[in-house]
Amino acid sequence: MKRSLTESSRIKRITNARVEHVDDLLAIEDPLEIQLRYGPRDAQTSRTISVTMRTPGNDDELAVGFLFTEGIIRDVSQIREVKDATGNGVLIVLDEQEVPDLKTSERNFYTASSCGVCGKSSIDAIRISPAHQYATSEAQIKAGLLYELENRLRKQQATFSTTGGLHASALFDLNGQLMMVREDVGRHNALDKVIGAALLTGQVPLVNTILLLSGRASFELIQKAHMAGTSIIAAVGAPSSLAVRLAKETNITLVGFLRESRLNIYSGWERIII
Amino acid sequence: MKRSLTESSRIKRITNARVEHVDDLLAIEDPLEIQLRYGPRDAQTSRTISVTMRTPGNDDELAVGFLFTEGIIRDVSQIREVKDATGNGVLIVLDEQEVPDLKTSERNFYTASSCGVCGKSSIDAIRISPAHQYATSEAQIKAGLLYELENRLRKQQATFSTTGGLHASALFDLNGQLMMVREDVGRHNALDKVIGAALLTGQVPLVNTILLLSGRASFELIQKAHMAGTSIIAAVGAPSSLAVRLAKETNITLVGFLRESRLNIYSGWERIII
Repeated sequence: MKRSLTESSRIKRITNARVEHVDDLLAIEDPLEIQLRYGPRDAQTSRTISVTMRTPGNDDELAVGFLFTEGIIRDVSQIREVKDATGNGVLIVLDEQEVPDLKTSERNFYTASSCGVCGKSSIDAIRISPAHQYATSEAQIKAGLLYELENRLRKQQATFSTTGGLHASALFDLNGQLMMVREDVGRHNALDKVIGAALLTGQVPLVNTILLLSGRASFELIQKAHMAGTSIIAAVGAPSSLAVRLAKETNITLVGFLRESRLNIYSGWERIII
Repeated sequence: MKRSLTESSRIKRITNARVEHVDDLLAIEDPLEIQLRYGPRDAQTSRTISVTMRTPGNDDELAVGFLFTEGIIRDVSQIREVKDATGNGVLIVLDEQEVPDLKTSERNFYTASSCGVCGKSSIDAIRISPAHQYATSEAQIKAGLLYELENRLRKQQATFSTTGGLHASALFDLNGQLMMVREDVGRHNALDKVIGAALLTGQVPLVNTILLLSGRASFELIQKAHMAGTSIIAAVGAPSSLAVRLAKETNITLVGFLRESRLNIYSGWERIII
């Protein structure tokens, strides 16, 4: 189902002391409930795994990507069916013999008593281990190729320019050709959509690709990218301290502040040729 | 405990084909575990309510603000003690007779079977009702006053300019005087810190204040602001569709794309004098 990413809203636009009544385009934000059904046919369990505020569209990709990057499923082959019936809910049904791994996700909410974060290193406390240990890429790319990527993304990212309200995640091949782009009010959703789409079309691990993030790079985004076997990430915005630390630990090349003629390399500089 | 918001990282900065090795400042991102303890002295319950990725500093405000804006506590008077012992965990202990409201927060995670979002309007499905129905403000402010706010925020928001990686939330009085500002890698955290600080100093409801958000305005931020009785919100970035709808329903003035000489009014325009 193709849905619009924007809706119109009547606003007052004030410029100095001049008032105009205009129709403005807003990025749509709506809740999506991701449900999971699993277990033997005569004793199935259904659970809401997450309610995420997302921009409608590619909801099946978002749900599949979320379950994978959160470590709840290991592989798309565990899925029997993806039901996207209601517009604001996606139900993922696993094959009868498949067991989801809910402990990582459950850990963070309403766990009993002892502090899971205190006394551990930050990363150990929150890191999800991928089920697959994908080999990292040995490929190298030119800095000049990276300079062009944001421009290529902007050409595709039509909605951002009209609303200023959407994040994008995009995949490029090592020649700088755009493979796919997804937009969302939530940057984690945009990335889950990209990874979900890649899973559903057999393109994971993403080892020989460049992942471009339109905004800042947080720990969560690097972790999701790592789950899908990404080796090169370029962000238009700033990375956080923990994003850099995780990129170093997992041998990911992390570029930040990507512009038309400059960039910062935070980790894995051996993959970038000047 | 005053902690640094940034840490240094050795990077390669590439400009065209020139390479420099420099120390770059990163915004610190670290997990904070918010724990809640409640119940009678001989049968206390302790629970992890949330693990949030935040920039260290003002953790007690963040924890108190989070519990309040999520509807888990109604009032700061329910709190007996805030323990900020370990650096990455805050334990909030309620008075013996106080019962937290965990159903709103629990609803979103691992609820059984039926879809909580499908078949309801989006807002009804995710909205949290404030325990207090604060009166909204009848005060009016000049557009020209709003134009100056971002500049005043930038002067205070030192870390953003050094890292490009922090969101800010700030409170101004109706004369445009800055009351407080908080920064965080997560914009919801920056707002929870402001609301927590206001709660701890008896400044809630925030009815006659202006809340300035350094980035985009999502549903979640409007909801948090509404819980604290805010009537005027100005965002430097774009609002989402659901943010505008909630602002209209709750009689909040929502300004977006705030610049030095222009702004958009999405709702509650009667509070803005041109």
